[in-house]
Amino acid sequence: MELFLDCLPCLLRQVLEAARMATDDEIIHERVMDEAVQMLFMHRSYDCAPKLCEAMHAIVKKRTGIEDPYAKIKDKDISEALRLEPLIRCFASRNDDMLLQALKVSATGNVMDSALYKDLDIEACLMAELEKPFAICDKDVFEKDIQKAKQILIIGDNAGEAVFDKVLLQYLSAQHEVIYAVRDAAIINDATVEDALKAGVAGYAMIVSTGCTAPGAVLEACSAEFQAIFDGADLVISKGQGNFEALSDTSRRVYFLLKAKCPKIANALDVEVDEYVFKKNSYEIKAPKGLAIGAKIPGK
Amino acid sequence: MELFLDCLPCLLRQVLEAARMATDDEIIHERVMDEAVQMLFMHRSYDCAPKLCEAMHAIVKKRTGIEDPYAKIKDKDISEALRLEPLIRCFASRNDDMLLQALKVSATGNVMDSALYKDLDIEACLMAELEKPFAICDKDVFEKDIQKAKQILIIGDNAGEAVFDKVLLQYLSAQHEVIYAVRDAAIINDATVEDALKAGVAGYAMIVSTGCTAPGAVLEACSAEFQAIFDGADLVISKGQGNFEALSDTSRRVYFLLKAKCPKIANALDVEVDEYVFKKNSYEIKAPKGLAIGAKIPGK
Repeated sequence: MELFLDCLPCLLRQVLEAARMATDDEIIHERVMDEAVQMLFMHRSYDCAPKLCEAMHAIVKKRTGIEDPYAKIKDKDISEALRLEPLIRCFASRNDDMLLQALKVSATGNVMDSALYKDLDIEACLMAELEKPFAICDKDVFEKDIQKAKQILIIGDNAGEAVFDKVLLQYLSAQHEVIYAVRDAAIINDATVEDALKAGVAGYAMIVSTGCTAPGAVLEACSAEFQAIFDGADLVISKGQGNFEALSDTSRRVYFLLKAKCPKIANALDVEVDEYVFKKNSYEIKAPKGLAIGAKIPGK
Repeated sequence: MELFLDCLPCLLRQVLEAARMATDDEIIHERVMDEAVQMLFMHRSYDCAPKLCEAMHAIVKKRTGIEDPYAKIKDKDISEALRLEPLIRCFASRNDDMLLQALKVSATGNVMDSALYKDLDIEACLMAELEKPFAICDKDVFEKDIQKAKQILIIGDNAGEAVFDKVLLQYLSAQHEVIYAVRDAAIINDATVEDALKAGVAGYAMIVSTGCTAPGAVLEACSAEFQAIFDGADLVISKGQGNFEALSDTSRRVYFLLKAKCPKIANALDVEVDEYVFKKNSYEIKAPKGLAIGAKIPGK
């Protein structure tokens, strides 16, 4: 997915937040912002938001010397999610449609996003969020696809969210081999292998790194090992906005599971901001370069 | 008040919004954002946010050829406020403390700010906002000050807000000469003379321009005529964040009436975001340059 002009102020705000998490030194905040603004000027060098985001947060890491400014926030998010786990599991088991409930729990975990909801009273909002239905839900198609599947790849998103994903991983792992992929290094509040382990994911899935350090699985930046897993998996579930931005144009079949938090993502998915989506992509065959799917060929 | 790093992403977001209001041409949006990012890089040339805001919106005006991108929004805000006027007046009259009610109505008018609340369901929120008490309210001191006052200057903020200000203007004009100052030209959704006339302010106060086109009355950029009014008025009420940012360090007595919408403003006023404030400044005598009020003089 292209980088939108809307991403520029949003990324700049996030970089300042990260710089302040890393240090109280205001001189360093100024330097980080100077470099970040300079990088915004070069935004056309980046073809999707996760790539620019990675580059901008590299400035924070370099100037503050802190490799993981969100470390404390991620730990807090994971602890909070683990504390809420009994409540989550209670919700997940209260309906006969266990898959639907597990998908909804996993999508709702996306609210555990400190980068966006830093002052959220999680416990107060959780039940209300869980009760919200999907605006788009391709669960029926997924249920057909899953019957033929052996290996399922889930590409995770935020650290706290990984706890919520366990319900879905548990459901899927009963009859399938499940792989849970995470970022290769700390980037905003996204889950790394360490975070996934803290969240307890290892009990339900094999944890792997995408090899990519952007906050979205940008395929060309992923490791050969991960690319092989991605190509070889019978089903792929991509979680969150960053992975959607990175994978929305992929030629393989992917189910996107997320809450649309920004207007541009919501528009691309044809839903409203704050709505939940479980959507199978329609790009079974990749379009020729420079020609969008469904585009009219000149002269035809 | 100084320009904060937090202002940079916020102003960039607002410039994109203004560019889109002015034209649908995405090439022009790109050009505007390129120049805006370039200007952000020079942010140290601007000592307060209203000045940088003015300069950034000048890019939108220049590149789109549209002098007032918010014209439609302002007209809508004024119409909405006029439609709500009976409700507002009903609220204002339902308590014996007419001054307090008038101040609260005027402060609540600050919610009519399309730049921040573009999707707000105004009617649904209005009553709830009106019911919120002030977090800081220097009404008692104001009541003493007003007894000695002849001429009162109110520096207006947003266009729709001017309708809400009429209740306060009516109250004050019963025993005082009231002047209502507005921006010299269109800048975001702030009121100009034309907007104040549409809002019906002329029935209660003399409308003047500050001579300044920034979204805050930056004194050195105001006309000599306005500066004389500002210096000569017995009481000054400054409305909204932009005027607070421009006037927070002034040496004369000013009452600030606003809703704190941004964390930095809230922090400066020692309140929470979204709280209402009616606060007399404490800077009766201006501090020497470079030395903050209350600062310890070295060696003393």
